Amino acid sequence: MPQPDNVKTHPDYPVPETMKAWVLGDPNQLTLVGKPVPMPKKAEVLLRIDAVAICATDFEIISHGPPAQIQGGAPFNKNFTPGHEYMGTVVALGPGVDEFAIGDRVTVEIHAGCGQCKRCRQGMYTSCHNYGKNYGDVDKGHRANGFTTDGGFCEYQVNNVNTLIHVADSMSDEEATLVVTAGTSMYGLTELGGLIAGDAVVVSGPGPIGLLGAAVAKALGAQPVILTGTRDNRLEIGKRLGADHVINVRKENVVEAVRKLTGGKGVDFVVECSGAPNAVNEAAQMLNRGGKICLAAFPSEEVPIDVAYLVRNNIYLYGIRGEGKSATHRAEAFMRQKRFDATLIHTHTFDMEDLPEALRYARERVEDAIKVVVKNKHAARQLKAAE
Amino acid sequence: MPQPDNVKTHPDYPVPETMKAWVLGDPNQLTLVGKPVPMPKKAEVLLRIDAVAICATDFEIISHGPPAQIQGGAPFNKNFTPGHEYMGTVVALGPGVDEFAIGDRVTVEIHAGCGQCKRCRQGMYTSCHNYGKNYGDVDKGHRANGFTTDGGFCEYQVNNVNTLIHVADSMSDEEATLVVTAGTSMYGLTELGGLIAGDAVVVSGPGPIGLLGAAVAKALGAQPVILTGTRDNRLEIGKRLGADHVINVRKENVVEAVRKLTGGKGVDFVVECSGAPNAVNEAAQMLNRGGKICLAAFPSEEVPIDVAYLVRNNIYLYGIRGEGKSATHRAEAFMRQKRFDATLIHTHTFDMEDLPEALRYARERVEDAIKVVVKNKHAARQLKAAE
Amino acid sequence: MPQPDNVKTHPDYPVPETMKAWVLGDPNQLTLVGKPVPMPKKAEVLLRIDAVAICATDFEIISHGPPAQIQGGAPFNKNFTPGHEYMGTVVALGPGVDEFAIGDRVTVEIHAGCGQCKRCRQGMYTSCHNYGKNYGDVDKGHRANGFTTDGGFCEYQVNNVNTLIHVADSMSDEEATLVVTAGTSMYGLTELGGLIAGDAVVVSGPGPIGLLGAAVAKALGAQPVILTGTRDNRLEIGKRLGADHVINVRKENVVEAVRKLTGGKGVDFVVECSGAPNAVNEAAQMLNRGGKICLAAFPSEEVPIDVAYLVRNNIYLYGIRGEGKSATHRAEAFMRQKRFDATLIHTHTFDMEDLPEALRYARERVEDAIKVVVKNKHAARQLKAAE
Amino acid sequence: MPQPDNVKTHPDYPVPETMKAWVLGDPNQLTLVGKPVPMPKKAEVLLRIDAVAICATDFEIISHGPPAQIQGGAPFNKNFTPGHEYMGTVVALGPGVDEFAIGDRVTVEIHAGCGQCKRCRQGMYTSCHNYGKNYGDVDKGHRANGFTTDGGFCEYQVNNVNTLIHVADSMSDEEATLVVTAGTSMYGLTELGGLIAGDAVVVSGPGPIGLLGAAVAKALGAQPVILTGTRDNRLEIGKRLGADHVINVRKENVVEAVRKLTGGKGVDFVVECSGAPNAVNEAAQMLNRGGKICLAAFPSEEVPIDVAYLVRNNIYLYGIRGEGKSATHRAEAFMRQKRFDATLIHTHTFDMEDLPEALRYARERVEDAIKVVVKNKHAARQLKAAE
Repeated sequence: MPQPDNVKTHPDYPVPETMKAWVLGDPNQLTLVGKPVPMPKKAEVLLRIDAVAICATDFEIISHGPPAQIQGGAPFNKNFTPGHEYMGTVVALGPGVDEFAIGDRVTVEIHAGCGQCKRCRQGMYTSCHNYGKNYGDVDKGHRANGFTTDGGFCEYQVNNVNTLIHVADSMSDEEATLVVTAGTSMYGLTELGGLIAGDAVVVSGPGPIGLLGAAVAKALGAQPVILTGTRDNRLEIGKRLGADHVINVRKENVVEAVRKLTGGKGVDFVVECSGAPNAVNEAAQMLNRGGKICLAAFPSEEVPIDVAYLVRNNIYLYGIRGEGKSATHRAEAFMRQKRFDATLIHTHTFDMEDLPEALRYARERVEDAIKVVVKNKHAARQLKAAE
Repeated sequence: MPQPDNVKTHPDYPVPETMKAWVLGDPNQLTLVGKPVPMPKKAEVLLRIDAVAICATDFEIISHGPPAQIQGGAPFNKNFTPGHEYMGTVVALGPGVDEFAIGDRVTVEIHAGCGQCKRCRQGMYTSCHNYGKNYGDVDKGHRANGFTTDGGFCEYQVNNVNTLIHVADSMSDEEATLVVTAGTSMYGLTELGGLIAGDAVVVSGPGPIGLLGAAVAKALGAQPVILTGTRDNRLEIGKRLGADHVINVRKENVVEAVRKLTGGKGVDFVVECSGAPNAVNEAAQMLNRGGKICLAAFPSEEVPIDVAYLVRNNIYLYGIRGEGKSATHRAEAFMRQKRFDATLIHTHTFDMEDLPEALRYARERVEDAIKVVVKNKHAARQLKAAE
Repeated sequence: MPQPDNVKTHPDYPVPETMKAWVLGDPNQLTLVGKPVPMPKKAEVLLRIDAVAICATDFEIISHGPPAQIQGGAPFNKNFTPGHEYMGTVVALGPGVDEFAIGDRVTVEIHAGCGQCKRCRQGMYTSCHNYGKNYGDVDKGHRANGFTTDGGFCEYQVNNVNTLIHVADSMSDEEATLVVTAGTSMYGLTELGGLIAGDAVVVSGPGPIGLLGAAVAKALGAQPVILTGTRDNRLEIGKRLGADHVINVRKENVVEAVRKLTGGKGVDFVVECSGAPNAVNEAAQMLNRGGKICLAAFPSEEVPIDVAYLVRNNIYLYGIRGEGKSATHRAEAFMRQKRFDATLIHTHTFDMEDLPEALRYARERVEDAIKVVVKNKHAARQLKAAE
Repeated sequence: MPQPDNVKTHPDYPVPETMKAWVLGDPNQLTLVGKPVPMPKKAEVLLRIDAVAICATDFEIISHGPPAQIQGGAPFNKNFTPGHEYMGTVVALGPGVDEFAIGDRVTVEIHAGCGQCKRCRQGMYTSCHNYGKNYGDVDKGHRANGFTTDGGFCEYQVNNVNTLIHVADSMSDEEATLVVTAGTSMYGLTELGGLIAGDAVVVSGPGPIGLLGAAVAKALGAQPVILTGTRDNRLEIGKRLGADHVINVRKENVVEAVRKLTGGKGVDFVVECSGAPNAVNEAAQMLNRGGKICLAAFPSEEVPIDVAYLVRNNIYLYGIRGEGKSATHRAEAFMRQKRFDATLIHTHTFDMEDLPEALRYARERVEDAIKVVVKNKHAARQLKAAE
């Protein structure tokens, strides 16, 4: 890293000039290359990346390219590094940064809004109106690492300080990568949804967000928390994370089962994590008047929706694309306090150099993989050296 | 009216024992019959009905029966009186009522929640969990006059005090019947939507709610307010009510036109009053990231919706079924202060005895009818007598 | 109880016509007398009172009379029964009640708003504009049992259904009486204050509200939770309930200590439960810019306050007088889920007949009493009979 | 201005290297000196200052120095330029700015939060936790021009784009300087207070904020709006701006008068702009249960406050220090739509070179001055040149 006067480093955490990084070429083509280590600017730090969890959205990006907004809409940016659920160690501070010290262990949330637009001024930075504008003449400072700016499948990355969350010493690197997943559910249930303890919640779809969604709902005092899905082993994990009831949708009529479990009343929230074509309509049927549907997943095609039913029953529909309103801080606080054991969804760990194999495990659910994490070996080495 | 000790009346406003009332028989069959004048209970008053506006929802009820929740789900309740957008004069006070005096001119909002359920305790009384439960053993006190309890196409009706709004002397009976229509838009834009002055708004569909929606949005300081529709004469009325721009969707690509009018940015709110099958998808395309769709109308069938677009762009979707959170009081305050001229949408007046003809005018838009009002002749007579 | 047709009872829970009740005569004069058992009206149930906790506010009422609003302001209402933190068993249902069944164990919150006024329509029923109006010609249906209507130091009492919370079987009668105390803190921190997990909180004053306030704050994910007070043994209990740090204000400068514990930043909330004359000013000094002071206690006299400091630092000040927005339901959900052990603050139990001695223990803190509970012996008897 | 590559200028708006600026020496000592024209950085523009209104806070700063946080707490920063209520013309764009074009007329709000801290991430940027940190090693980018960074009593100033509001062509320079004053009331009433149309409001103290506060309250639909003060001529202006009633506190008991005007009910909001020692207690007496006091002024010393009354009546107290949540944009929208005539409070205009005399007029209320504005002559000259 070319090191200007106003960037601070520390001899215990030496920063090289280049690093290894996975970059996206043509669709589904990832190559491990050398890249310059980036330099933190105002309000940014440089992280040494220690661990990265693989998310279903990574597959979208690897197959379809980063979101089209970037750099004039080029579908594949031949030098782009994906990966967004990572954690690491602060190794350099940009100008004016004193919120973090070199050596701090941190995990990340994704969206650093521009801080200037209408939505950012409202505190809704995941809806930043300058989304993706972080290049050339229209650099507004928006970053969404792994989406619109380089991400974590590499050795070092810069992050805006407002995307960083301190990690408790008691939390392993792997667990720390799950904070953002829990934070996404937290955001949807609390800031956007207004859940209060005692509200009844259905979570549909026991993927990572759904499983941690059930855990977060329970930790927030929801009652009952009902998890629905097709695989009994996943549903069992949901129970250990806090679900009061589980429903296997292959064995029961899910709407009837929810109605029965709630004494005919229906629930106050459905967190939809299945992306099934009829999910919105079914969710509506599970809700009581005035209930809310939070969409964490969605079908890729248009689907038929009974809008009249939504309106007649005062049902609200909103999506979450990320983890706004500092929800990750709240998620980390809950995990630090052991309100639920997020490590139950971490199933496999690979070396960063074996990323393709890690991706295969996650995509094909090899050995029933849920969350697959890749780690940088050198992190371990450096840590040892620093001791 | 059999008059118990704790109901107060006044000699200037004598209350008869029976009245004329329109009742619903088979589908589309309305008959003028004699009915006992109802008696106000705790927290209720008796109104002499002076004027009633006809709403599109009245046609649904007259053709399909009142909502099925009522009285065990009987689709047609042979003695039911529809009509919900009415105003009148207080002629009797139930026990404990001192919020209103006999002789007060008032207009009504529709929903008197039970006041006991979870939603009512939250102040969301239009989503009352005891909706329709106002009979027999499960009388929870919920009333939605003209929907689940007898309405206004008659001479007298009881109303919970919390559904009444004082009417300024400067407001005609006809204008006063429009408060609830304005209040519906107000509710959707402010309490549910959080609109602030300076936000950009599209209103799609220049029916009564759409036209007053444009007026209310402008009065709240929205900028610009864009009204879309198919009929130029209606759009012209919208301009006089406050719309900054109008778009005839038959002549222009509405999404492109909205984008152009907003410098490419899109709007913050779409108030959907057209009920068109593709309305939700089009609305989404008009919005900026983080924008909101407020549904005041809806298609009767399931429609295909691009859920992925909603989620990716953090778009919120919610319906309004009525006029909660005391929005009618705010609407009346704006109309009293002459922020907009609601009478522009009142086109025809009929005598209550001519209700079928009035309904025909409204339903078939005879002479380009927008809001058709029916009035009780006797009201005029009594008033004269009282002078 | 004279039993009209529309009140439901059950032979397993016979209801007598009269009961024993403590009534307030002159200041500090409580007498055990016979009183008719009251009858539940619409939306009300009759409870057999099983246990009542004594609250500091009871002493105010016993010494100064119930709030002056009642019945024309007579300072002492010679037949008034105080006591507001009670729980019991449903033994009769008023007309239309199906939310509860006879035999249900419930605990209570205090305020049944009128359901009609502006504040109730907003969901702010503890600020009901018809507070105290529940008698004679202006009966608005407001009840605040133990404050403006008869309370729980007796055998039976009527409660509006919206003041009742189901009690988990796993919770003892004594623990159930503490739900309303936890709910008061919950209300102040969440609905009014907007606390989110990770916020830093000081609770000043380790009385019952303060101790459960620390517990609730921690259960909500606050970090750190700092409890301040003068007595080390109380502070130790606070630690067991969830406080991360305690400060004995006799041994340390409390403002400096809070600043030190928060790395100089100050906290986001102070829950003031001490009522000390300088408490507001000190709380302000502990807060960061934009922080909030929630007053659960207050000095009886005017106190000097540095208003300029509050304004310059954007500090918000609000009081809690009770437990609005269904916060008790959330508190019960947390206690049911064993998020904290409220029984740590329950120190003594007396028979209802020994109420004066129980009051002495609570008032003089005999044997370091914190929460003193009185129980109805007959409840035990009847329960046995019912088995 | 030394002009780096990434700052854009335009030949029609040439930017000199130095300018005339008033600077603060010892207390109350202002000197007109030469200063370099500052250079806009990322997300900043350079404004040519056309007009500046004088605010009471300017006197505080001129007499007591800028807030102590600045630059190590030196009470007087010998080169500091005060002045914060200004408007002007964009003459240069910092890197990445496309929200504004050179030549745009804009007015300003004061606080550019750091965009990184907890409060900014919540959208509460007036409570920025990095307030005043905009220098040397801890430059967090916070600016509050005229408070912690150089202000408007000069020819050119840099502003963060999020502090700028476009000014309608129909608005004079003088009127545009008043947007921030109206925005301050707007912020207190809407975002912080939650005022809705129909709420009853008292504004105490007919200074500039109070007068525009009455205007804004009325424009928002408040009913009634009551303005209180000691000078009849000021109260008359308040009436023309929208107050429904005025009370001269020297002639009437203000609490009784407010109670009488509201039928005994009291009001929902008091906007306190007098700073009188008993103002908070009096405000509390004017409010109904659950009402709110918004403090726009405050006494300089500690004052006795009846905290018990606030708590018992669920009264909320909050201060406004500025104009957060984009309230200035809403205020400008209202002024652009001619909801009230803010120019009624503009009484005098001086040339920027006569600032000391302008300050004397404002401070001593010479010729009953309300708002005194200073203008840069050269602005007029340049404008002419550009034509």
